[in-house]
Amino acid sequence: MRSVSIVGIGQIPVQKQNPASLRQMGATAVLQAMDDAGIDKVDALFAGNMIGDELQGQKHLATLVADEAGLTGIEALQVRAATATGAAALRMAYLAVASEEADLAIAIGVEKMSSGPATPALAKALDAEKEVAVGANLISKNAELMQLYIERYHMPADGLVNFAVNAHNNALANENALFRKAVTPEEVSNSRIIYPPIRLLDCSPVCDGAAAVVLAPTSEARAFTSTPVHILASSVATDHFRIADRKDPLMLAGGRLSALRAARRANINRNDVSFFEVHDAFSIMACLLLESTGYARRGEGWRLAAEQRIWPEGDIPIATMGGLKARGHPIGATALYQTCEIVLQLTEKAGANQIKNPKIGLLQSVGGAASTVLTHIFGN
Amino acid sequence: MRSVSIVGIGQIPVQKQNPASLRQMGATAVLQAMDDAGIDKVDALFAGNMIGDELQGQKHLATLVADEAGLTGIEALQVRAATATGAAALRMAYLAVASEEADLAIAIGVEKMSSGPATPALAKALDAEKEVAVGANLISKNAELMQLYIERYHMPADGLVNFAVNAHNNALANENALFRKAVTPEEVSNSRIIYPPIRLLDCSPVCDGAAAVVLAPTSEARAFTSTPVHILASSVATDHFRIADRKDPLMLAGGRLSALRAARRANINRNDVSFFEVHDAFSIMACLLLESTGYARRGEGWRLAAEQRIWPEGDIPIATMGGLKARGHPIGATALYQTCEIVLQLTEKAGANQIKNPKIGLLQSVGGAASTVLTHIFGN
Repeated sequence: MRSVSIVGIGQIPVQKQNPASLRQMGATAVLQAMDDAGIDKVDALFAGNMIGDELQGQKHLATLVADEAGLTGIEALQVRAATATGAAALRMAYLAVASEEADLAIAIGVEKMSSGPATPALAKALDAEKEVAVGANLISKNAELMQLYIERYHMPADGLVNFAVNAHNNALANENALFRKAVTPEEVSNSRIIYPPIRLLDCSPVCDGAAAVVLAPTSEARAFTSTPVHILASSVATDHFRIADRKDPLMLAGGRLSALRAARRANINRNDVSFFEVHDAFSIMACLLLESTGYARRGEGWRLAAEQRIWPEGDIPIATMGGLKARGHPIGATALYQTCEIVLQLTEKAGANQIKNPKIGLLQSVGGAASTVLTHIFGN
Repeated sequence: MRSVSIVGIGQIPVQKQNPASLRQMGATAVLQAMDDAGIDKVDALFAGNMIGDELQGQKHLATLVADEAGLTGIEALQVRAATATGAAALRMAYLAVASEEADLAIAIGVEKMSSGPATPALAKALDAEKEVAVGANLISKNAELMQLYIERYHMPADGLVNFAVNAHNNALANENALFRKAVTPEEVSNSRIIYPPIRLLDCSPVCDGAAAVVLAPTSEARAFTSTPVHILASSVATDHFRIADRKDPLMLAGGRLSALRAARRANINRNDVSFFEVHDAFSIMACLLLESTGYARRGEGWRLAAEQRIWPEGDIPIATMGGLKARGHPIGATALYQTCEIVLQLTEKAGANQIKNPKIGLLQSVGGAASTVLTHIFGN
């Protein structure tokens, strides 16, 4: 297969409510990424969007965004993996270039969650018949995991607070972040209970956003930029769909398996990774991913936060530009924001957020209650 | 890129209402296709489904179907291209094998339209803000094209009736078809007006169905079957999203462009094609695709039907197992049914529907009002 690199990025500021339409937001990110790559056309566009079918009544989005961006005629398809949808768009664009079906492909994610009630739409990431029908949603499922974690490992009540503290600190200098405001451990601990034991500041926010990246063959990448970023691996793994069907709900098999497949493909081990853009939609999910990928032993993921080892200068920096928690989590766009941030880090353009001498960035994206997990590995 | 072949097919009978759930229908087609290929695992599954997010409340379908089929752990992603969604799943599976990211991939389409009102959900294939907001749906948009066609080319009132007559005749012997009942030209002409000038028998039906195909590298295909079918080309092209924005609404640029790209990739011309599984969701759409792909001159596509040249023994047989019109059009599954039928034809297993000595089969799939068109070419 053909090696693939990122040669352009585009992201618009995450907002509580963006006045632009879904197509306009998407086209803006697309054109920005193409401008960054110095190109005015691509062969293919893969769009990620999770809830626009309901909130904006749009089930044919990729072509709509392509047309709005002036790219009429190109290939355009939409992809979905629930809350990991942005990563699915990245993977599809990767496959298109790797297979030689496209020379230049764009992965774009866009989500406009402000148009209507997001929580019931997001719950459709779960099993409609067996979970949603009995009242479950993504918050309750993450609460279930957190409660189980507390009970099994006797984690202190404030064990996870530093996930939010780190994310908010890192968002301060990110001009595309929704929350550019630090939070203290006390503020996290004292924030209101949303669904026990999850508190408000354990959760990523509902918001609007769009981000895009341009992919090209590595063999041509320097024609578009002096700082291409190599996609070392792209992988997907599923688990039993429902938490209830898993032998051990606290081991995210999709996270472990997709990370292992990606590491084999990239021929790296976890110690080679400079930073980890983790799926911190909820603090407990970040904690479990750190364990599933082997950065912490079972039951000790929270300690990486408590001991500040996830800080930018720590052993394994996470959410280096604010993460889902503070940059925001506009679902279908999220993994593309993360990819843009990884590109900024690896090309030493992350400004005040720059981590020291990064070589390899890891990205994980979680669909639903970790039923589907995508892992991407990037190198400079 | 790596050459890709189909090594197994699975399809369940199209029904007005299938008592099984979405996941069960999907898993049944998957397991049938895998059994046909003699395998008990695959690396990846790409699922096509258009309206299950609303009608079954399910936005995370690929993993659900994979889990139901006992394929936990594999890659699973969902794709979408409005009413061409099944073909998008086929293309994604094709990219996965062509890129060497998967050795065995399954493309599966499933749709359960019987669970609720399908027409408003299907309308979301159009522009929500500029078309649906003013009352448009897929029937009205096809009616607009048909009216324009009648006015421009002075087609007789019964010009298109043979599209339905041919489809129904061809469905008679297809045990997976919804309508196994011939219709006469008079019955088509006298069927009730749905949206002028479209009559009931110009339209494909709302129904439930699921179909799947297994893809493998051509270099390994004979390990799975003595009759692999080669995917000679896969392509996608978009047009201006709205009919209103197109210079000539009666030239389907997406159909023309994707066919041209696919023909170049396969290095064939239209005279090499033995039969054409066309997107006859509405008779006018079949007519326009025959013109866009060059089988008929502009304004003369209807004559191919009127002169019975689309019959199984004609110059360019279409809808050879019943087409969308009579086999049925369970949206996300449709192109996979068509692919299964093309495989049956090319492997001389089409029974009473077998066309004579077929070498190359053409498949076109239309998203929305032809905003997105996918073309696939298959050879034996």
